Amino acid sequence: MKVAIVMGSDSDFPVVERCINILKKFGVEVEARVLSAHRTPHLAIEYAMAAEANGIEVIIGAAGKAAHLPGVIAGVTVLPVIGIPIKSSTMDGLDSLLSIVQMPSGIPVATVAIDGAENAGLLAVQILSVKYPELRVKMKQYKKDMADAVVEKDKAIQLKF
Amino acid sequence: MKVAIVMGSDSDFPVVERCINILKKFGVEVEARVLSAHRTPHLAIEYAMAAEANGIEVIIGAAGKAAHLPGVIAGVTVLPVIGIPIKSSTMDGLDSLLSIVQMPSGIPVATVAIDGAENAGLLAVQILSVKYPELRVKMKQYKKDMADAVVEKDKAIQLKF
Amino acid sequence: MKVAIVMGSDSDFPVVERCINILKKFGVEVEARVLSAHRTPHLAIEYAMAAEANGIEVIIGAAGKAAHLPGVIAGVTVLPVIGIPIKSSTMDGLDSLLSIVQMPSGIPVATVAIDGAENAGLLAVQILSVKYPELRVKMKQYKKDMADAVVEKDKAIQLKF
Amino acid sequence: MKVAIVMGSDSDFPVVERCINILKKFGVEVEARVLSAHRTPHLAIEYAMAAEANGIEVIIGAAGKAAHLPGVIAGVTVLPVIGIPIKSSTMDGLDSLLSIVQMPSGIPVATVAIDGAENAGLLAVQILSVKYPELRVKMKQYKKDMADAVVEKDKAIQLKF
Amino acid sequence: MKVAIVMGSDSDFPVVERCINILKKFGVEVEARVLSAHRTPHLAIEYAMAAEANGIEVIIGAAGKAAHLPGVIAGVTVLPVIGIPIKSSTMDGLDSLLSIVQMPSGIPVATVAIDGAENAGLLAVQILSVKYPELRVKMKQYKKDMADAVVEKDKAIQLKF
Amino acid sequence: MKVAIVMGSDSDFPVVERCINILKKFGVEVEARVLSAHRTPHLAIEYAMAAEANGIEVIIGAAGKAAHLPGVIAGVTVLPVIGIPIKSSTMDGLDSLLSIVQMPSGIPVATVAIDGAENAGLLAVQILSVKYPELRVKMKQYKKDMADAVVEKDKAIQLKF
Amino acid sequence: MKVAIVMGSDSDFPVVERCINILKKFGVEVEARVLSAHRTPHLAIEYAMAAEANGIEVIIGAAGKAAHLPGVIAGVTVLPVIGIPIKSSTMDGLDSLLSIVQMPSGIPVATVAIDGAENAGLLAVQILSVKYPELRVKMKQYKKDMADAVVEKDKAIQLKF
Amino acid sequence: MKVAIVMGSDSDFPVVERCINILKKFGVEVEARVLSAHRTPHLAIEYAMAAEANGIEVIIGAAGKAAHLPGVIAGVTVLPVIGIPIKSSTMDGLDSLLSIVQMPSGIPVATVAIDGAENAGLLAVQILSVKYPELRVKMKQYKKDMADAVVEKDKAIQLKF
Repeated sequence: MKVAIVMGSDSDFPVVERCINILKKFGVEVEARVLSAHRTPHLAIEYAMAAEANGIEVIIGAAGKAAHLPGVIAGVTVLPVIGIPIKSSTMDGLDSLLSIVQMPSGIPVATVAIDGAENAGLLAVQILSVKYPELRVKMKQYKKDMADAVVEKDKAIQLKF
Repeated sequence: MKVAIVMGSDSDFPVVERCINILKKFGVEVEARVLSAHRTPHLAIEYAMAAEANGIEVIIGAAGKAAHLPGVIAGVTVLPVIGIPIKSSTMDGLDSLLSIVQMPSGIPVATVAIDGAENAGLLAVQILSVKYPELRVKMKQYKKDMADAVVEKDKAIQLKF
Repeated sequence: MKVAIVMGSDSDFPVVERCINILKKFGVEVEARVLSAHRTPHLAIEYAMAAEANGIEVIIGAAGKAAHLPGVIAGVTVLPVIGIPIKSSTMDGLDSLLSIVQMPSGIPVATVAIDGAENAGLLAVQILSVKYPELRVKMKQYKKDMADAVVEKDKAIQLKF
Repeated sequence: MKVAIVMGSDSDFPVVERCINILKKFGVEVEARVLSAHRTPHLAIEYAMAAEANGIEVIIGAAGKAAHLPGVIAGVTVLPVIGIPIKSSTMDGLDSLLSIVQMPSGIPVATVAIDGAENAGLLAVQILSVKYPELRVKMKQYKKDMADAVVEKDKAIQLKF
Repeated sequence: MKVAIVMGSDSDFPVVERCINILKKFGVEVEARVLSAHRTPHLAIEYAMAAEANGIEVIIGAAGKAAHLPGVIAGVTVLPVIGIPIKSSTMDGLDSLLSIVQMPSGIPVATVAIDGAENAGLLAVQILSVKYPELRVKMKQYKKDMADAVVEKDKAIQLKF
Repeated sequence: MKVAIVMGSDSDFPVVERCINILKKFGVEVEARVLSAHRTPHLAIEYAMAAEANGIEVIIGAAGKAAHLPGVIAGVTVLPVIGIPIKSSTMDGLDSLLSIVQMPSGIPVATVAIDGAENAGLLAVQILSVKYPELRVKMKQYKKDMADAVVEKDKAIQLKF
Repeated sequence: MKVAIVMGSDSDFPVVERCINILKKFGVEVEARVLSAHRTPHLAIEYAMAAEANGIEVIIGAAGKAAHLPGVIAGVTVLPVIGIPIKSSTMDGLDSLLSIVQMPSGIPVATVAIDGAENAGLLAVQILSVKYPELRVKMKQYKKDMADAVVEKDKAIQLKF
Repeated sequence: MKVAIVMGSDSDFPVVERCINILKKFGVEVEARVLSAHRTPHLAIEYAMAAEANGIEVIIGAAGKAAHLPGVIAGVTVLPVIGIPIKSSTMDGLDSLLSIVQMPSGIPVATVAIDGAENAGLLAVQILSVKYPELRVKMKQYKKDMADAVVEKDKAIQLKF
């Protein structure tokens, strides 16, 4: 099972890296690429078109500002496409969010929160889990670990009073 | 293969119906429910918790205003959860969108456009396609039909000049 | 008289602490908890359901981004619920505010300003004052002290000219 | 037990009426007034200052645009003040919401959704319930009835498929 | 001299038509097409790539919601690209505007107002005027006519008083 | 000729000071006060009501967040009232701006830009100039000096190339 | 005493008319003009420059969208300039408001609410009142009448219960 | 071939400089000026009116807040005018963007992203390319270089995994 993470610029990497770490933690093979919907559109489209044949099962696209990358990818593949809106230097990420989530009818992009890279990784795992039951087992453990961490923090807060 | 569509209020049905129609068109079994994160939280949570055991593979949640339903469902299941922000009488749907898409780290909701019910259905089909190759074949045909429809409209416009 | 303060993450504590200080200043017993609507939904709901029986008379919920905690709590209790929208790293708190204040008909959350933790504490005191006259006496003194502080600052400004 | 509802203009009445109906349904005495923070500030302030002595236990203020009424009232009373932001002809109610909810530290206004008049009434009942147990009993029944109504709608939707 | 007008959907035509009328009024040859960045991406890209060779000197792209069309076109041509953000059923056109104007460094789109189709046409004429002096003459007359029309309206208003 | 500058909190002083400096530069007597619409409403209202009798001809109010001070003052005086929306820690000043500018019909507040303290001072001078011709002379000189400063900067920029 | 009202387009007249009516009610001479900052810039600037010499004491500018008219006028006169942001077909007037109120340091525009034409008229009267005491007398009566009207409405509401 | 870059304040220079560098890189003659629509309106208008006769073929205007400069220039020239919205200290550049892009029908401004100075330069080059084929050759090379840079970054990212 393999997931592709495509970012519009290598400046998005610090955010995207958190997504890669999640996927690796779940044992999902990751292919990370810098491909721009505007600067290298042909490469981006070729890559997205070939993804299915190359064994990729989910594509994650991260982009900022007028963030077209996830939508352009979604236009040329039938794989599920997840979009991460990257917060840029102006507009606090609202431009990225609207450019990704407001896709017209026919071409969905599964959008997560602004800079929500971990959730993009977890969503990819949940999607793969439909097919791979072992991922679902891991995801249940992941959620349990998260809950346990909250319980620990809850105890720490209660001790303060 | 079965998808659950949960709406927070039956007033969301006219939008949600477009999602149901898409799923039926692809031969996906649909279970539609009215369950509120606020008015019937126990039923909503029970339903979401039992969904996996009941053979449901993707859950779609539609809600407006402070739209908590998809996020609450996502908190109690490991199934992929898709969120449809419903435009309400004020704020033009921005409240619904932010309430659904801005999920904290750990619990993703795959968000589509405001009132983007068709895309929620198509995204569910794409997710199921990871497991069911026959859906992918249909999705390719669907995209081809969409493209053909655009080409027809393109011809009509060109004839005008 | 006892007030519960539930925060969605311990990262909210620096803001929430100002609320706790207000309540202590008024001699109100405080129970502070970290409970997540998404990561530990069952604990959050159990806690809220048991609150009335445990002698809690007002619940304050603080959360950021897609801030569902106050609304989820309000769904399972008849106690008055106060919501504090926490400013997060993007959207300047607008997402938190709309996720908390735009509750659908039937389940109110008494929302204060973004990061308005002191006011959440004061509002809880005002609510308790309906029952406990001694709190109202203290609140009158508190408002008088506030007014006096403004008067002092007013004098200082006037001296500058 | 008595609640005052103050609206900035009689044009707010169609929204405010829903709040009055809720309060009457719960057997709470209601005093409805048109008092403007800008056109009749002295009357508004006098009324708010006398409210406690007149047996009023909660004040609800409804106003639109630069909606100062609830905040001005909150400045001169120690009673809990609930604010209803009224949607006006421009800005979709965002101006009203921010003018009411973003109160500075020291003077809280318990804000409900834009045009959220029912919830203002229900919140007033929940606040009164801290003192009057019989209201809490009624509120539990109200929530149960709401849940039952959702269940009925849920059944109706399920029958469609 | 020839200008291409590409719209993402034929539902954009009523707005786009005003642009076509402007161009015709100036004697500029117009080629109007329905090409979608998402539904017919290959056709859109092929068309944009061939535009220069086909004698087109300016391309105008009109699209709504997550409006990627002008940006995608700009990625594959060196012709100046003008973008018209189309107001859609939600978000009042803000999504379309940000999706078009917030282009990343390297790939500009000359953006006009939401639904600003006339201005897109006039901007195309101004761009062509750099090369074709006869258009500049016409544009000066056009501006004079506009000014005269304002003067007429000014006289009419003055007569009222 | 005398202008009053009322600020809601002494934390607004660093911005307000720029306004005071402008007024002093024009030889206008300034009275600066810290008066809160919420914490010292009676003092604020008394001050505004007495202003006309005290020889004040224009009142400037500066406030942040739910910024009611200028509107409350405008409600109890017939003097022209100028409002300065102060940028606070969240919402980038949009809450302050809307709370001040969106005044209901009947009670205007002459609103300047967010943190636009200089312009509030200049506007006060322009208003006073209607009565005091010597201020108009100074204002013409001020505008000339501003223009000269721009011309100097223009020369400096041109020298760079 | 004379006030000029300049609108950017005669389509603004239905809003502007309410301003004219207010001024006439106060016995202020009104000069209404259609002058565009963009279509007839020279006429607009000439008019504004000559205004002082022509006995005009306050200029009101009304414009929508990228509403430059009040600011352009303010650049070439020392008279106080009031701006009315007109709500246009998109953006709910936010574009007009920001284009008018966010003036850079040095050139203030006294901005009223979106479509706030009455308040622009009242503000002009308040400004003129600095010089003409008879207007202040009328303004006090106007405020008294407004207050009386609210009192009547208050009585009517009270009779309902 | 010559392009004029007009900025409203020399504080805009650090952003504008990136535009100048782009133009120089393409061998386009640049004329940089500080001219204010509000502080030196006559100079700005004179400059814009004379631009065509002075051999300028495109004008770029950069301004912040209530950014009228590009629109005012566009009103008095038939040359294509490009607008750069400058991000200022509040509103994150949204005020500048709307003030520039939302031009009324008849007077277009070709707007680029907030602080999008490079793109303003590139757009000017693309516009000039309509007339000067040698610029188009350079632009193709520029796009190729950009694509090559992305490819290099893509390789670097791939090597990380």
